[in-house]
Amino acid sequence: MSTYVHDQLERRRRALGPTYTHFYQEPLELVRAEGVWMFDSTGKKYLDAYNNVPAVGHCHPLVVEALARQASRLNTHTRYLSREPTELAERLLSTMPPDIQNVVFTCSGSEANDLAIRISKFVTGGTGFIVTPHAYHGTTELTSGMSPSMKGYAKGKDVYITSAPLGDEGPSGFVLGVKACLEKMRADGVKPAGLLIDTIVSSDGLCINPPGFLQEAVQAVRDAGGLFVADEVQPGFGRMGWGMWGFELHGSIPDIVTMGKPMGNGHPIAALAAKPEIMNAFAQRFGYFNTFGGNNVSCAVALAVLDVIENEGLIENSRSVGLLLKDGFRRLSSTYPAVVGEARGSGLYWGLDMLSGVETSDVVNGMRDAGVLISSMGSRKNTLKIRPPLIFSRENAELFLDALNKVLQLKMSSLERAAPRVLPHAV
Amino acid sequence: MSTYVHDQLERRRRALGPTYTHFYQEPLELVRAEGVWMFDSTGKKYLDAYNNVPAVGHCHPLVVEALARQASRLNTHTRYLSREPTELAERLLSTMPPDIQNVVFTCSGSEANDLAIRISKFVTGGTGFIVTPHAYHGTTELTSGMSPSMKGYAKGKDVYITSAPLGDEGPSGFVLGVKACLEKMRADGVKPAGLLIDTIVSSDGLCINPPGFLQEAVQAVRDAGGLFVADEVQPGFGRMGWGMWGFELHGSIPDIVTMGKPMGNGHPIAALAAKPEIMNAFAQRFGYFNTFGGNNVSCAVALAVLDVIENEGLIENSRSVGLLLKDGFRRLSSTYPAVVGEARGSGLYWGLDMLSGVETSDVVNGMRDAGVLISSMGSRKNTLKIRPPLIFSRENAELFLDALNKVLQLKMSSLERAAPRVLPHAV
Repeated sequence: MSTYVHDQLERRRRALGPTYTHFYQEPLELVRAEGVWMFDSTGKKYLDAYNNVPAVGHCHPLVVEALARQASRLNTHTRYLSREPTELAERLLSTMPPDIQNVVFTCSGSEANDLAIRISKFVTGGTGFIVTPHAYHGTTELTSGMSPSMKGYAKGKDVYITSAPLGDEGPSGFVLGVKACLEKMRADGVKPAGLLIDTIVSSDGLCINPPGFLQEAVQAVRDAGGLFVADEVQPGFGRMGWGMWGFELHGSIPDIVTMGKPMGNGHPIAALAAKPEIMNAFAQRFGYFNTFGGNNVSCAVALAVLDVIENEGLIENSRSVGLLLKDGFRRLSSTYPAVVGEARGSGLYWGLDMLSGVETSDVVNGMRDAGVLISSMGSRKNTLKIRPPLIFSRENAELFLDALNKVLQLKMSSLERAAPRVLPHAV
Repeated sequence: MSTYVHDQLERRRRALGPTYTHFYQEPLELVRAEGVWMFDSTGKKYLDAYNNVPAVGHCHPLVVEALARQASRLNTHTRYLSREPTELAERLLSTMPPDIQNVVFTCSGSEANDLAIRISKFVTGGTGFIVTPHAYHGTTELTSGMSPSMKGYAKGKDVYITSAPLGDEGPSGFVLGVKACLEKMRADGVKPAGLLIDTIVSSDGLCINPPGFLQEAVQAVRDAGGLFVADEVQPGFGRMGWGMWGFELHGSIPDIVTMGKPMGNGHPIAALAAKPEIMNAFAQRFGYFNTFGGNNVSCAVALAVLDVIENEGLIENSRSVGLLLKDGFRRLSSTYPAVVGEARGSGLYWGLDMLSGVETSDVVNGMRDAGVLISSMGSRKNTLKIRPPLIFSRENAELFLDALNKVLQLKMSSLERAAPRVLPHAV
């Protein structure tokens, strides 16, 4: 670690305190970013294959321009009437099924999920929620109590955890898990309020197959009086390379949709969208006002992000570059069968299982040394998490696959203490 | 209402749904703002004597410049190391007592208060919180359950409400109320976790006298094992015209401080600061990561806001213009004794009681017609809420007092159906 980075880290440790952690064995200190590239203070550049928040690319000029223009004109709250929040709400609703008609703006996905849970409890009269075994839904007391993946997780009252979704092995396991939760609620005298689920189950390791695998589970929850709350913070805004939302995969229209991270390309904005009968029932009793939620600048930024996704064809890009990655993962798996397992994903969100032959964190740190940023996920952290900005090009993908091949080759050779395998022709 | 405003309102009603409300009988539609002025779509301008969020003035050029510069350079999260969050944390801590040593960034005051409550519960092992009768602490389920002022307020579990703080009548009533809450907790078998209080008790109608009135109550809470959580969302950043924080009034150092609204001049950023032994205890068990909390752009904006407060001498301005307002309120009270009651406040935050002779909402709407924005507060909404940006000048204050005099004169004459009183020489 350089003296400069060491000093920065010490200052940070003192001022920010002990809840702050950092990625990598040696922290990465960043000073600049542009498109898919991030730069450290020595000028070294890194290909960003991890960050989903800057979905349209770091510091996209049109987004920065919209931000600066609106910030120099008007930034106020929604108790006055102004153009931007309405326009953004209409624009978001135009990407959703017609059943979903109202938008509420918040500052973070945590606030959106917290509100979704409050609304679900009130309108159903129930308290019981079903989540997946390694779910993440936010940092408030309420949402962290529904996030088994969090450090120190303290299970919320009336939270029920399904057995793991089985994905490629078929939907039956997931449905059985949900039905068992509903059965347990009945036994415990808890009225169901909803199924709260990331529609691609990403923090459990990513699961999108078979299409429609949620349908039967959603029906069971509805039959028991609960709502389907789709947490679209991860899949939303076109990441999967088809449509705008993860729930489109399932053939079930959510009662409430929450969204966040990529919505403002890094600017704090998030939202909840819902069926009007649900919002009307909630509004009979409760108000909701969020000081910064729906401010003009945040809305102008989110509108610019939607423009860029559309004008630069980023959903299509996500699909086509995703297929290229998929092919690459298949080749890596056949080259390194002892260490590279299944690849799950779509578009620009992939989980690549590392097998027992290799430490996943070694691969993540090795990729950083090779100038590529990724991370790991899943309950055992043994799945590589590959989730670049949506502008990731075919060339970026090839560079990424090449780097991963070299890192795996190095790990294999050091593990096997043997001559490296022959490199595949084009990984 | 113009057809244009009517259409805008209709579109908004459809897309944003029923939880959104607006100020004024006829909504105010805004398109631009600068300094202390806001402009509607017809070009009419309004003197902003209400909005505390744009503390350094709407669209301050140095804040907009910092925002645009950082947004075009780097905007990432705190799992990488970067300069801005550390610098902002150090800068905030330099304004606080040395006991407070750690900062955690969030996106909103709600998130900061939610986290403060979680931390208090964990480190004390208690669950009971004391709040004031008309408190507002946020929009999450947890914080809204501690906000009796909210529409549809559903009291949280283990929330105890003090009798009203007595302020000018002396601190004894407040202390007795807090002690009664602690007694009730004992009777209910609830272990105290803390006193959560806006240190100027603004949503209860504003109370700052006598200085130190919280001290004995804080001591009672600490003796019972609870923490003192100072919600500085309203008084913080120099609004009161002395120091940076409301708690400075009380001679008691908080265990946890939360801050928000004016911190980013409208940009979504908030924070929690705490004693290190508290953060260390929490971090032993729990992690905390907030995706947008402490991002580089939000931090650069907050640093620019601190620069402006300091370089433009806004705390001093708040004090001196506040004294001018105070004189004006005294004159109005002697001119209109039947309608103008006590003025409470300091710096650029004032509550002016309206007596039974006049409808407070008529005065608020009358001021809007006169081109001045204010609101009302207190449990019966009969206190005018006067809380302009900190750049409010002596000239702005004179304009404001003149408008208020004219509106009151008009209300009096229509009420009394008599000849208007003689105008005071210089209100």
